[in-house]
Amino acid sequence: MKVAKFGGSSVSNAEQIKKVLKIVNSDPERKITIVSAPGKRHQSDIKTTDLLIRLYEKAIAKLNYTAKKEEIVQRYADIVHELNMDDHILKSIDETLERYITTLKNKPPRLLDALLSCGEDFNAQIIAEYNNSQGIPTRYVSPGEAGITVSDLPQNAQILDHSYEELYNLRNYKEKLIIPGFFGISRQNYVVTFPRGGSDITGAIVARGVRADLYENFTDVSGIFRANPVIVKQPQVIDEITYREMRELSYAGFGVFHDEALQPLHKDRIPVLIKNTNRPHELGTYIRHDREINTNNVVSGISCDKGFTVINIKKYLMNRQVGFTRKVLGVLEDYNISFDHMPSGIDSISIIMRSKEIEHKEEQVLNDIRKHCDVDELGVEHDLAILMIVGEGMHRIVGTASRITHALAEANINLKMMNQGASEISIMFGIDVEDAEKAVKATYEYCYNGKCIVT
Amino acid sequence: MKVAKFGGSSVSNAEQIKKVLKIVNSDPERKITIVSAPGKRHQSDIKTTDLLIRLYEKAIAKLNYTAKKEEIVQRYADIVHELNMDDHILKSIDETLERYITTLKNKPPRLLDALLSCGEDFNAQIIAEYNNSQGIPTRYVSPGEAGITVSDLPQNAQILDHSYEELYNLRNYKEKLIIPGFFGISRQNYVVTFPRGGSDITGAIVARGVRADLYENFTDVSGIFRANPVIVKQPQVIDEITYREMRELSYAGFGVFHDEALQPLHKDRIPVLIKNTNRPHELGTYIRHDREINTNNVVSGISCDKGFTVINIKKYLMNRQVGFTRKVLGVLEDYNISFDHMPSGIDSISIIMRSKEIEHKEEQVLNDIRKHCDVDELGVEHDLAILMIVGEGMHRIVGTASRITHALAEANINLKMMNQGASEISIMFGIDVEDAEKAVKATYEYCYNGKCIVT
Repeated sequence: MKVAKFGGSSVSNAEQIKKVLKIVNSDPERKITIVSAPGKRHQSDIKTTDLLIRLYEKAIAKLNYTAKKEEIVQRYADIVHELNMDDHILKSIDETLERYITTLKNKPPRLLDALLSCGEDFNAQIIAEYNNSQGIPTRYVSPGEAGITVSDLPQNAQILDHSYEELYNLRNYKEKLIIPGFFGISRQNYVVTFPRGGSDITGAIVARGVRADLYENFTDVSGIFRANPVIVKQPQVIDEITYREMRELSYAGFGVFHDEALQPLHKDRIPVLIKNTNRPHELGTYIRHDREINTNNVVSGISCDKGFTVINIKKYLMNRQVGFTRKVLGVLEDYNISFDHMPSGIDSISIIMRSKEIEHKEEQVLNDIRKHCDVDELGVEHDLAILMIVGEGMHRIVGTASRITHALAEANINLKMMNQGASEISIMFGIDVEDAEKAVKATYEYCYNGKCIVT
Repeated sequence: MKVAKFGGSSVSNAEQIKKVLKIVNSDPERKITIVSAPGKRHQSDIKTTDLLIRLYEKAIAKLNYTAKKEEIVQRYADIVHELNMDDHILKSIDETLERYITTLKNKPPRLLDALLSCGEDFNAQIIAEYNNSQGIPTRYVSPGEAGITVSDLPQNAQILDHSYEELYNLRNYKEKLIIPGFFGISRQNYVVTFPRGGSDITGAIVARGVRADLYENFTDVSGIFRANPVIVKQPQVIDEITYREMRELSYAGFGVFHDEALQPLHKDRIPVLIKNTNRPHELGTYIRHDREINTNNVVSGISCDKGFTVINIKKYLMNRQVGFTRKVLGVLEDYNISFDHMPSGIDSISIIMRSKEIEHKEEQVLNDIRKHCDVDELGVEHDLAILMIVGEGMHRIVGTASRITHALAEANINLKMMNQGASEISIMFGIDVEDAEKAVKATYEYCYNGKCIVT
């Protein structure tokens, strides 16, 4: 059994929905489909989710929200009419929005969640009804009915473990099932949305619950590129990648697939296939637990992200002082700061974090470190970019680091930091923000075209 | 004013002592001299310090120790006779040893310290008396008289801060001063020896106390080599190096100069000169706070040490969990384990420590990490060697990492870990123990002879 999830652009209008259903119906294994809210139909269009946020803002401000509501209803009306469906559902959409606003207007976070969920929910209902009307037994299943029970903190749903057992029962349905993504129902019976990755998370949870053989994630790109296509012209598509590689790549700016969505799948080793709704014949990218290693080129992908800050600490004979690093990390914990890397020397440590983690707290954090940790030198560096070169098997191939650093040196890029080994599948480089694009280009050209960019 | 310290082989017999005094007397700035106990006179000889340990062992076992004692007295008798000195001091030596044994036999740790101190102490007295007899006003100053006051834990003396003020008064003497190294006097009036680095520590403390312009450390090598001469044939001698570089090199197996001895000097930025007693005309190696950087070859030295253990921890989404690393380090702290490096990835950390730190505790430490930290994978790797490539300015020269990793790749050495950036003056590599010598050779040849060793 396969679980397929379709992103917002894949279900933005009638034409796209027809494509989606053609894909769904072409394979009897594709039993469960998770759908997003209608996305943009063209560049200047507004996503349904954003329309819903505007409606919410009007409603809690006690302003007249009728126009905003009608915009949303119209969005679905366009779909319903283009699909030549009966428009009884439009009345239900209008009523649902009204009901949420009336009953939840004094609980803004609850109202936001309820309205946000409508984007996916109405779309799922329409798509299920349409497919059914085409003679394919299809059923809309709400997250509550499916058993997607989540924690109760608004906009921050976390799946509860027992949900997986309930979801397994979805296997009993004979029809094809359409489930809206992005939200679950709390034990307190509230709609609660997932914090990040929206429908991807729902898809992953359902795939794990039903123990799918494959989780297909349909989007508007043909797979995962080896490097950012904005920086590298027409980069190769990765055919196969592991969860761990995906996680390291998505950490440093790979936007295709939210790494948190991999977590449920990771545990049960369910493979993921990233495919393009508009080019379903293309192979796409498999994400698996394990894969064969290509010893000719161990580098799977290259990513680079900006916006990192480093705290540099020096202390003579630091490594002799049991507990020193722990004290420093204690300060970060006091400020609820999570960090990403911590290269350390015998008399020094550098702590690398996303700049937003320490924003507005920097002065206090540094003062506390000074106060509690008796350091010799303490400094902060902003505007660091992190370049990640990722590939399973990398640590076993002699010369990998040599080749990458050679390509970077030829491109005249100074390596402020370098960290290899903790993760066997990546090498991390800390570089200047200004070098970020050049570094991606240089390593890409070297790894996949065998060329050095000399500057 | 200069403070000069002479190691055991420099003061092992009359001939060596004459060399030392020639050096001392040749420069009026050399006012204070720290001497060690007589070292080996030839390969199969026994160091005085070891003779003293044997005496101690007999004494606390209540066995007949007369022969051991006489061996020691004979050692000094050889020196005294060869120097044509009056032998009244030999009686005092015998009496002192007897007195220590009688008064301290029920306090073994105190007896050990007292006997150990004799090696340096007697030698200092003899050398001072001899030089005086040669017409050069010279005075023996005991550590107590000099003001070297230390903490009271046997074999683990730590200098007390106010000592430095007292030591400053040594400037008032008109004579040349000879001070025995290796021990101080506690406030409780016990002799207490320094834990490591013996006379080097005394020399550094005195140099700082009198605010010397230079601390000369005379030994039996012509300075600090760029790499271990046992591995590399006739390596270059370093002309100038910083404290920080010295510390990073000595961390990974550079035996010449104990890095803890640098600590007092570090604070007042007193330069050190490592010289060869037997070849005093050779330039030796300066250790300074700052130095000019040679941009043609930024690598100052290469060192490699074995006997490291790595704990590898993996946890999916580790970097999102505030406090995770701190919890792991808390376990290490519970077991009083200090670590040296901690390369970290987004989902993994490796903690590198000297194997002896975790010996006999490994099982418990791992169990505690498992219990407290909810990890996905936990493993230990033994027999890691650490290769350190050290050089000020390294981080500012594009391509340093590329060149070094190239040399290692050509020698077919797999890099298990690599860490650069926390310390701006070094790159650390984790390699297999079996690759240790080859790695030093390969990087030395490449850095100083421009050749690759290809294997």
